Amino acid sequence: MAVIYEKVALIGLGLIASSLAWGMKRGGLAGEITGYARSAETRDIAREIDMCTVCDSACEAVQDADLVILCVPVGAMDSVMAEIAPSLRPGATLSDVGSVKRAVISAVSPHVPDGVHFIPAHPLAGTEHSGPRSGFAELFDNRWCIIVPPEGADRQKVEELASFWRALGSNVDEMDADHHDLVLAVTSHTPHLIAYTMVGVADDLGRVTDSEIIKYSAAGFRDFTRIAASDPTMWRDVFLTNKDATLEILGRFTEELFALQRAIRRGDGEHLHDYFTHTRAIRRGIIEAGQDTAAPNFGRTTGGKT
Amino acid sequence: MAVIYEKVALIGLGLIASSLAWGMKRGGLAGEITGYARSAETRDIAREIDMCTVCDSACEAVQDADLVILCVPVGAMDSVMAEIAPSLRPGATLSDVGSVKRAVISAVSPHVPDGVHFIPAHPLAGTEHSGPRSGFAELFDNRWCIIVPPEGADRQKVEELASFWRALGSNVDEMDADHHDLVLAVTSHTPHLIAYTMVGVADDLGRVTDSEIIKYSAAGFRDFTRIAASDPTMWRDVFLTNKDATLEILGRFTEELFALQRAIRRGDGEHLHDYFTHTRAIRRGIIEAGQDTAAPNFGRTTGGKT
Repeated sequence: MAVIYEKVALIGLGLIASSLAWGMKRGGLAGEITGYARSAETRDIAREIDMCTVCDSACEAVQDADLVILCVPVGAMDSVMAEIAPSLRPGATLSDVGSVKRAVISAVSPHVPDGVHFIPAHPLAGTEHSGPRSGFAELFDNRWCIIVPPEGADRQKVEELASFWRALGSNVDEMDADHHDLVLAVTSHTPHLIAYTMVGVADDLGRVTDSEIIKYSAAGFRDFTRIAASDPTMWRDVFLTNKDATLEILGRFTEELFALQRAIRRGDGEHLHDYFTHTRAIRRGIIEAGQDTAAPNFGRTTGGKT
Repeated sequence: MAVIYEKVALIGLGLIASSLAWGMKRGGLAGEITGYARSAETRDIAREIDMCTVCDSACEAVQDADLVILCVPVGAMDSVMAEIAPSLRPGATLSDVGSVKRAVISAVSPHVPDGVHFIPAHPLAGTEHSGPRSGFAELFDNRWCIIVPPEGADRQKVEELASFWRALGSNVDEMDADHHDLVLAVTSHTPHLIAYTMVGVADDLGRVTDSEIIKYSAAGFRDFTRIAASDPTMWRDVFLTNKDATLEILGRFTEELFALQRAIRRGDGEHLHDYFTHTRAIRRGIIEAGQDTAAPNFGRTTGGKT
């Protein structure tokens, strides 16, 4: 593979930035990678693992960069942009990896200097772990990256960014910001909120101890705990900034849950059986699309006594 | 290991029965294993994979058995018992693997002949797959089996059954039926209902296509689809027979969900952040207890393009 951007700057050095750095190195996609994180501890870890050239200010990191990727929580985009805007090189591409797009566009756009190409993006990839040590080059392989080009975006710059994501292993789609935020409310934000809620409820029951919850979690509950262990700051910002779409999907969810609850109360087995039969098809589609494993229990390897 | 029961009969030949058969063979725990399923197709598959001696009637299968395990959906226990009761050997142990215990006891107890020891049990193990082909010997390794001995149960028979489950790889606990049903409502039944609901909602949205749901599922949603692909008949019966505990936990869940929903609507980031921080601890506990893997994304192996 060939270098796509001579210099790439990563602002924020968590799971996604770290995976980007290793992925760029795997593919030889960048001549130079610089990075900055607000926390000195995070910068030290990034230096220790030799993730990229870690700078002591965001402005220094973005100096002369051909591609700047904002990898901070959505709520931090505005202040980061206020800081780095004067240091961005004319002609540079500015992108991000935020989980919501309308709010990122609102926060970032007012700061973008003339001649800088702002092209928001969102790689649908991650794990429940956080921080620079949790990144790995394969994170984006066969996952989707959604690019959200603004009206009148330079198509050549958009194509360049798309080819960058493809070279990282991703598939690339384009979408407008509102549709992105709705799709993600369904496939990501609401599921996370529900998982957090279920885990919170279990943890808070007087009559069932935490030790019981933990011991007997393999009966289904443990599946929820993975995404409910995700980064709290990132997820707080997601819900605060994708409020409308999340509340809409939550409303639909509650409506359906009440219908099933009523079926249970009334002993309507046919309604339950029909509903539960229907949901199997989606799982098959996901496996056929290569977005999950067909192995039972996600292929977990915790069965053995060893 | 040594033979614990000379003859074991499995009534119902699905995932759990099949895993029991392979687990007994692995450990040499039974002199002879017989089995029966209502469906001729299931019996044929069980014969084809050489799972056990498959009989053409339930009565034939239980004849002279030292241990009979009911492995049918909870709603079928009553009619199965009416059929086999006259054929049970005095002194035999009768058990089951049902996911609810109070309802199984109500359905089975009236049929149990004098001299037969009914000791309900529930192995907290399974996968999203069903049928005899989905079983495997390791399913119970390091999982918990909850034994629910009735008042005045023969302690020697209870210990014998516990040693059988331990020899299958399980840890064993004892609990009363009502507490079991409440614990499982939290760790299994409510999570399943919620997962079914979330998958149903996603499938039913006009403005987001199924193809989008599938492509972008790796952002969290796919975790829900695994348990929402579980056997519909088994789960219908669980909800119909553990109605009270499930509705109680659902009530708590809805209450918490509404509180988080209000925090989102009001922009109360502190409430959200506190809640999301709290739930990380439970995940750590589950991993430390050996009930889930610490590997990111459950150690799924679907990342690569291959």
